[in-house]
Amino acid sequence: MSYKEFCDSDLEALSKLVADPSRIIPGNEASEDYSHDELGGTRCFPDVVVKAVSTQEVSAILAYATKENIAVTPRGSGTGLVGGAVPVKKGIVLDLSLMDKILELDEDNLTITVEAGVLLMDLAQYAADRDFLYPPDPGEKTATIGGNISTNAGGMRAVKYGVTRDFVRGLEVVLPSGEVMNLGGKIVKNSSGYSLMNLIIGSEGTLAIITKATLKLLPLPPKEISLLVPYPTLKQAIETVPLIIKSKAAPNALEFLQNEAIEDAESYLGSRFPDKSSDSYLLLRFDGRTKDEIEEACDLVAQICIDHGALDVFIMDTEERSDSVWKARGAFLEAIKSSTTDMDEVDVVTPRSRVDEMVAFTHSLRAKHGVRIKTFGHAGDGNLHAYILKDDLQDSEWHRRLEAAMEEIYEKARSLEGQVSGEHGIGFAKRDYLKKSLDPAAVAIMKGIKAVFDPGNILNPDKII
Amino acid sequence: MSYKEFCDSDLEALSKLVADPSRIIPGNEASEDYSHDELGGTRCFPDVVVKAVSTQEVSAILAYATKENIAVTPRGSGTGLVGGAVPVKKGIVLDLSLMDKILELDEDNLTITVEAGVLLMDLAQYAADRDFLYPPDPGEKTATIGGNISTNAGGMRAVKYGVTRDFVRGLEVVLPSGEVMNLGGKIVKNSSGYSLMNLIIGSEGTLAIITKATLKLLPLPPKEISLLVPYPTLKQAIETVPLIIKSKAAPNALEFLQNEAIEDAESYLGSRFPDKSSDSYLLLRFDGRTKDEIEEACDLVAQICIDHGALDVFIMDTEERSDSVWKARGAFLEAIKSSTTDMDEVDVVTPRSRVDEMVAFTHSLRAKHGVRIKTFGHAGDGNLHAYILKDDLQDSEWHRRLEAAMEEIYEKARSLEGQVSGEHGIGFAKRDYLKKSLDPAAVAIMKGIKAVFDPGNILNPDKII
Repeated sequence: MSYKEFCDSDLEALSKLVADPSRIIPGNEASEDYSHDELGGTRCFPDVVVKAVSTQEVSAILAYATKENIAVTPRGSGTGLVGGAVPVKKGIVLDLSLMDKILELDEDNLTITVEAGVLLMDLAQYAADRDFLYPPDPGEKTATIGGNISTNAGGMRAVKYGVTRDFVRGLEVVLPSGEVMNLGGKIVKNSSGYSLMNLIIGSEGTLAIITKATLKLLPLPPKEISLLVPYPTLKQAIETVPLIIKSKAAPNALEFLQNEAIEDAESYLGSRFPDKSSDSYLLLRFDGRTKDEIEEACDLVAQICIDHGALDVFIMDTEERSDSVWKARGAFLEAIKSSTTDMDEVDVVTPRSRVDEMVAFTHSLRAKHGVRIKTFGHAGDGNLHAYILKDDLQDSEWHRRLEAAMEEIYEKARSLEGQVSGEHGIGFAKRDYLKKSLDPAAVAIMKGIKAVFDPGNILNPDKII
Repeated sequence: MSYKEFCDSDLEALSKLVADPSRIIPGNEASEDYSHDELGGTRCFPDVVVKAVSTQEVSAILAYATKENIAVTPRGSGTGLVGGAVPVKKGIVLDLSLMDKILELDEDNLTITVEAGVLLMDLAQYAADRDFLYPPDPGEKTATIGGNISTNAGGMRAVKYGVTRDFVRGLEVVLPSGEVMNLGGKIVKNSSGYSLMNLIIGSEGTLAIITKATLKLLPLPPKEISLLVPYPTLKQAIETVPLIIKSKAAPNALEFLQNEAIEDAESYLGSRFPDKSSDSYLLLRFDGRTKDEIEEACDLVAQICIDHGALDVFIMDTEERSDSVWKARGAFLEAIKSSTTDMDEVDVVTPRSRVDEMVAFTHSLRAKHGVRIKTFGHAGDGNLHAYILKDDLQDSEWHRRLEAAMEEIYEKARSLEGQVSGEHGIGFAKRDYLKKSLDPAAVAIMKGIKAVFDPGNILNPDKII
């Protein structure tokens, strides 16, 4: 598919569509940041960056782009890992990060309505300050909520509370035609026609641009306690996970880590982790109304862990101790990134009971392909994050080894009845792997749906499918 | 859209597609049940009923129907209320109720895989017997799980645990072409392309036929206690609801009832309800790991209720006492139905804080239109069930008054930022009201999606849109 050659008259026309023309930045004057996302694997400069501040501006720009056949790539904070926000067909990058207003907290309906550019960390803090919890908790706190919805981000609390999808009640979206569509609302249940809202969640900005979201909040649980549980092997750690899930103790986070990731985090943060003497760890967090209630759950889980090979159970019941582990957990990605010259990522999800097999297989590829691979992930969700590091390899050799390792990882995930991505999405980088994992009928239907929403294929082209 | 005139050669061809031809029943020999659902408002006999026992049979029948341009209406138990399972374009009724096998309980991944025809009550019991909870709990326990998924049924526990959508992990579906498509799996998170699974949930058998489902289970909470809280007015009862939701006590059910519905249930069941001396009631249920934990939550909520106008708080802490209220609550629909000659229903959902306004308005229509209207519903979800009764009205007069009352109810729901259906779906009966409540852009997209899945429009035609 080819697009119009972007020219000065387009620049002029666009500047009439926004209230302040200084928010139109020609590609050659735009920051280099706009040419890539958090990982640098996909790179391309746009013809122009438009910083929108309102739904009306988004609508006007999309209508113009459709009329003129110009590609539009929506962008929040650019914290994605699969090139979803990279303008691979050039054209317009529509930056929504200035649409960062929290519009309404409705305490009676336990909803919060925000613009798409609000940062996850600001939303979570705003809610917490008012005694509410916004449960989705991806590691990347500077992502926008529009980005989180677009990839159906999961995060640390998914094991108890669910993923972003479970907390979206309503969306305002703009179609490629410029039409504004409202979906859902402050309602808890809905069975009123096809759920276009759920279709748009996770569609990575390829069907419509999310401008506002009404999200569900929960009352903030007053107490939290974390447990750090060392194991001699990852296998033993992972084998305990189904027992914990079945135990009725309901941890709100259940992560696995290994000492090599801990060491990276220590040197990145310059602070000490409470323990790194063991090979593998489970990191759990429990919340509840009373300290007694949580301690009971902790005791139950501690006993299960000790009965199944855990070497010890460290209780993190002060804010300071708890911070020391969760800060390190939150820094894994940055720490690994800073330890190498370049890297690419894998975000496969398998049934919970099979994630140890997935990890062991991934580690076996280190020797086979001669690359460093670092892993951590959400044990409770069967969601593995693996990072393949370039280090001092030559470009061509790096790409050869990377591709070979990736191919095997995704094949293994398929054989374990897993999927390509648990929460990072497909974007540009994972399209081939998605195609291999889907029924051909599903690919055809996805293409059909894309054409229904975006007949001119102007919205985030060449992503997902 | 017109379909092929169904003839003997079709009957013959169909009988070659199933293992046992006695499962092919010509329309004129079929039970009258196949011409309607639980409410009789929409009536039409099919040309033929096919009772499928396998995915392969469903696939073969759909492929044939597409090739021959014959309408196919999937049907489970026929417990719907909006005509979704009625073959309004004649053709084939594809009865899935014989596909009733529970295929696998996976205790490590906390999933259960079932055929679409398994009854909700059998699934719930099977899980409970093994110490697991399948939370979705619609009043109609003889519905099939395929039907529940097709309408995204909510039910009594939605206020704590969410609706059917939240418990679907994977689906096997058959497309109108006959192709079998697998979506999702045993995985907890997924961000791998458009969520066709979530699009099919709630699509009322118009996009594909669900043949198998992998569902999420929870560990069964060991204890439950219910509270029945009388109020002098419904307004006071409903006004307490947001306070309860915010209280961190997390009831797993939060219903409102009024004494007239209780009286109907008493005379229908022939058993006594613990109290009916007050105008209105909240009925709550709490679950948890320990009795102490639940009692604490009950105490907290009891105090909130008393502080806000409740006349008393009755604790239902034995199975017998608890059964007496929940049995009555479960019998409301049947009780109301048995009290009149015919009736139609409304299932609007509004923001939780506005459901009292919705109920008061609905009651005001009784005098205005001269019809009896009975209401009850899910206070915690803002989901009102209202039944408009025919009693001894003449047909034409009944339809005139019914339509006038419905029109006003749906208009009111729109003005309160509500939606047409919380959980019963749109089916045949509510299409006009859905159309009025949707953005025109959304209607066009839904039609486009329907055409992508079902270009020949053979699957459950004339439903939803």
